[in-house]
Amino acid sequence: MLMRNIKLVLEYDGSKYHGWQFQANANSVQQELATAIKKLTGESVIPDGAGRTDAGVHALGQVASFKTESSIPAEKFAPALNSILPPGICVLRSEQADPDFHPRFSAKGKHYCYLVLNRAQRSPLWETRAWHVRDRLDFEAMEKAARYFMGTHNFRAFCASGHQNKTFTRTIAHSSWQFGNEVLRYDTIGDAFLYNMVRIMTGTMIDIGRGRFPPEVILEAFETGERNTLGMTAPPEGLYLVEVFY
Amino acid sequence: MLMRNIKLVLEYDGSKYHGWQFQANANSVQQELATAIKKLTGESVIPDGAGRTDAGVHALGQVASFKTESSIPAEKFAPALNSILPPGICVLRSEQADPDFHPRFSAKGKHYCYLVLNRAQRSPLWETRAWHVRDRLDFEAMEKAARYFMGTHNFRAFCASGHQNKTFTRTIAHSSWQFGNEVLRYDTIGDAFLYNMVRIMTGTMIDIGRGRFPPEVILEAFETGERNTLGMTAPPEGLYLVEVFY
Repeated sequence: MLMRNIKLVLEYDGSKYHGWQFQANANSVQQELATAIKKLTGESVIPDGAGRTDAGVHALGQVASFKTESSIPAEKFAPALNSILPPGICVLRSEQADPDFHPRFSAKGKHYCYLVLNRAQRSPLWETRAWHVRDRLDFEAMEKAARYFMGTHNFRAFCASGHQNKTFTRTIAHSSWQFGNEVLRYDTIGDAFLYNMVRIMTGTMIDIGRGRFPPEVILEAFETGERNTLGMTAPPEGLYLVEVFY
Repeated sequence: MLMRNIKLVLEYDGSKYHGWQFQANANSVQQELATAIKKLTGESVIPDGAGRTDAGVHALGQVASFKTESSIPAEKFAPALNSILPPGICVLRSEQADPDFHPRFSAKGKHYCYLVLNRAQRSPLWETRAWHVRDRLDFEAMEKAARYFMGTHNFRAFCASGHQNKTFTRTIAHSSWQFGNEVLRYDTIGDAFLYNMVRIMTGTMIDIGRGRFPPEVILEAFETGERNTLGMTAPPEGLYLVEVFY
């Protein structure tokens, strides 16, 4: 049989899984997807993913791929897998990709967004969907900080320990906040992101909004590369992998 | 001790409860609230609610009230109850109301919204939060239909059987759709709503969008009062009680 490479675009509710990547003794998106593919095609595969989203992190457009010898038309994998996958995961679309397409290594960029619920009381409907921040925030300082991320910089200070990254220079093409009534949304598009980078960027901007640091702490961190000069790592529940560009 | 009437504004995730109203052998918002008040004040009360939301229906601004002899400042009930209530329910604010204030009988109007997810594949993040409609819809016909609801009409045809309503004349001050990329939002404000009225209105507008009826089916239903001339009752998961006016 002809071996084909199938590309999937996935949405998932990160609060229901222990992240993208397979782990023994914990449910993962990768494992659920492998199980569904096995049920559908009879083939045992480990699908590759574009980004290793942590436990709690959501996806609106995660990209995965796997090789198959099945004769199912490429675009039919989406509805067929959705009838097998649990409610927390859905395939938005499926298509045939080049034989050498790899979701992570072929990616040219990624779009993440981060949602903050900024009000006094917690929210039943935003629980697991946004970071609840009670403090009054300086939106102007946060947006100034967001603009400092644009361009090519050394992001070593914005990388969690335990990473396997060897280079720290990354280029950010878009970085901006939208301030709604209670929900604040940060969007960023870059060529690639270090481990926990968006969460450290967001946590730092919230600390800037709280007045704990001036926005220029970001410029200093580009120079020093020191993680401990920055704010907290924002929690996973506010982070969404929106889109992967190829 | 002085008896005070405390007014609460509530948000809840309707997917986690069997509706507002107390039921034996099923968890309800009213029961959870009564339990939390009992823990806080030691008093056994049955809080009144503005609307008896069905199982699955959400609230962004349900209003409840209860009488208390406790000395807790009125505005402190919100944070105090939130520390006791389960994650699915939250008190947005609390205040002292007039002794004769009643959430339902004092209400001058209500604002509901209904969310429809209009796309091919189901959604993990909108599951339990919106009605998933796959069909291509005629937005122009739906908005025309929405406008027909404005004004004072006989809504007998838009009332589910099993109701206890005696009069069917209601006045709708606002009725309009917003058509997003995938999420369609219907908003309506009226003086009062019959049992399942917003869900029958929305189900009928979706059937109009599907081309099953012309928008004028609504005008005919005002004349005939016949429920069976209309579309389906939209499911509860898309409905939100947004605000109650006094």
